[in-house]
Amino acid sequence: MTQNAKLNRQIQLASRPVGAPTLANFHLANTSVPNIGPGQLLLRTVFLSLDPYMRGRMSDAASYAAAVAVGATMVGGTVCRVASSQHAGFSEGDWVLAYTGWQDYAVSDGSGLTKLDPAVAAPSLALGVLGMPGFTAYMGLLDIGAPKAGETVVVAAATGAVGSVVGQIAKLKGCRVVGIAGGASKCNAAVEEFGFDACIDHQSPDFAARLAAACPQGIDVYFENVGGKVFDAVLPLLNTSARVPVCGLIANYNATQLPDGPDRSPLLMRTLLTKRIRMQGFIIFDDYGHRYPEFAKEMGQWLAQGKIKFREDFVDGLENAPQAFIGLLEGKNFGKLIVRVAKD
Amino acid sequence: MTQNAKLNRQIQLASRPVGAPTLANFHLANTSVPNIGPGQLLLRTVFLSLDPYMRGRMSDAASYAAAVAVGATMVGGTVCRVASSQHAGFSEGDWVLAYTGWQDYAVSDGSGLTKLDPAVAAPSLALGVLGMPGFTAYMGLLDIGAPKAGETVVVAAATGAVGSVVGQIAKLKGCRVVGIAGGASKCNAAVEEFGFDACIDHQSPDFAARLAAACPQGIDVYFENVGGKVFDAVLPLLNTSARVPVCGLIANYNATQLPDGPDRSPLLMRTLLTKRIRMQGFIIFDDYGHRYPEFAKEMGQWLAQGKIKFREDFVDGLENAPQAFIGLLEGKNFGKLIVRVAKD
Repeated sequence: MTQNAKLNRQIQLASRPVGAPTLANFHLANTSVPNIGPGQLLLRTVFLSLDPYMRGRMSDAASYAAAVAVGATMVGGTVCRVASSQHAGFSEGDWVLAYTGWQDYAVSDGSGLTKLDPAVAAPSLALGVLGMPGFTAYMGLLDIGAPKAGETVVVAAATGAVGSVVGQIAKLKGCRVVGIAGGASKCNAAVEEFGFDACIDHQSPDFAARLAAACPQGIDVYFENVGGKVFDAVLPLLNTSARVPVCGLIANYNATQLPDGPDRSPLLMRTLLTKRIRMQGFIIFDDYGHRYPEFAKEMGQWLAQGKIKFREDFVDGLENAPQAFIGLLEGKNFGKLIVRVAKD
Repeated sequence: MTQNAKLNRQIQLASRPVGAPTLANFHLANTSVPNIGPGQLLLRTVFLSLDPYMRGRMSDAASYAAAVAVGATMVGGTVCRVASSQHAGFSEGDWVLAYTGWQDYAVSDGSGLTKLDPAVAAPSLALGVLGMPGFTAYMGLLDIGAPKAGETVVVAAATGAVGSVVGQIAKLKGCRVVGIAGGASKCNAAVEEFGFDACIDHQSPDFAARLAAACPQGIDVYFENVGGKVFDAVLPLLNTSARVPVCGLIANYNATQLPDGPDRSPLLMRTLLTKRIRMQGFIIFDDYGHRYPEFAKEMGQWLAQGKIKFREDFVDGLENAPQAFIGLLEGKNFGKLIVRVAKD
């Protein structure tokens, strides 16, 4: 089913997942396209970003942002075109970065929109390397990780929207960069496309030993976006004065209970103490929103100079967003996952 | 048995403890007083500091400092007088801060010694509020904790050498200060002697609920020097953007294995992420040695102005050091624990 001008398809949260989300947690509703009034504009979704944080929005456990209500449309970043406008600042056909969620159309009063110039960069990049994931990589690595030339930086989900940028920036800063990814083709891409020094397959039975071998000088910065067994392998390799920006914990997002014991939190605390490690969680726009222009300028230059590469993983059709999102949590995407809602 | 000029008593590590140290892990050896040569001086111990970190030195598990060898004299900070000198910089009778360990006498070439002026401050304070514990409190709280006026600061071991200073500095900075201590008399002292706003007894059966009630605005800075069940009660109370300097984990030092499950390390990581918390271990002289003069100046002023109070817990006799140290790990001391090796 494709986008048309008479119908506003919405993907709503049908029920809260217990453990991994299933298709039954989502409902595709056919609603009418809303009308606009003076000062408003109608946005038509072209690209919808799918990101791991959305799993948190499906639950009502306390988190840093409100949960999506059951029956409400799933939230998410989008790249839209203006379908019609009664707003002086926007004209039909304009490209904008918005946060209109998993649907074809939305009404806006213009607030929170960022105009995009397709002559400068492909609009979809505003959802990836030039947008929230790239900004997350940039600030988390540079401000919290603070890598120095010659240090070893490790990042998991090495071909993902965040990880691939973390690794490439760390290379620009003169670090040894070791990625972690699932499967040989992703590991090859991390090294060959993104220029990592090494990339270790976490599906390998001797993963921990291979990671240790790839980090002969230990780990100075571990950019945490995974958690779980990847963190277990990283922890004993952390050097004195290592920094651990905590960006995400995708391995845990579907967990319904804590893992079996022993309770290793004292081990984690002891490692922080004896190795004088700094570990810091961050939420990109809450902590660093004021520094977005600095990121946008430098990343724009790097892209123009070909110093940062990116990979997008497009899925066609809004109706395929739920399955794509389920796959994202399983690591099935290969690059920044984007739903192409319309062929525009 | 008291100190005399013919005998150098040494308390040596007889064996490595498994779990809590016992008296059998220590051996009191009677050795001869060493001779000095040109450029050397003989130090006679007056005060020996007992500190929780010494438990780590008794084990050969990897830590931030080398283990004491079995058969070697236990290490530790001391306040000594110069018994005889062939060193141009020191005269008989001088008071010095040294690191000569659990013994009556030691030879020095003068390196690493700090002269003390007993007219300025009681020499024993160089082991407490004016020394390593005070410096630890000062830098950990101010540099990592970075408390702002009106915030809530929580510190355990509230009447201890470090905790009592943390709380008082936080009060000087305009914070609400909640201590945690073991037993009513320590809790009373935290409030009445040290000026904490509240102090909760961790032996109380409703400890966690009482801590929550004492922190109606949550916790902005938790100065971690205990770990264990105290940390468990603190974790859910931490506010967004809280800071957790990790100074010590005395509750875990005698553990021979990790606690039973579930494994709560994912909960800890998730809390760091969703609340954007900074947690950072530090080892005072390794991380902040260069800032000692800044501390010494400000703390000296605060003491002179009566703004910082302290409590010392003296134990008489070098031979009683092992039992006092065992008690320290059990929380039996009340203030900075110091062995008065000689009555000087």
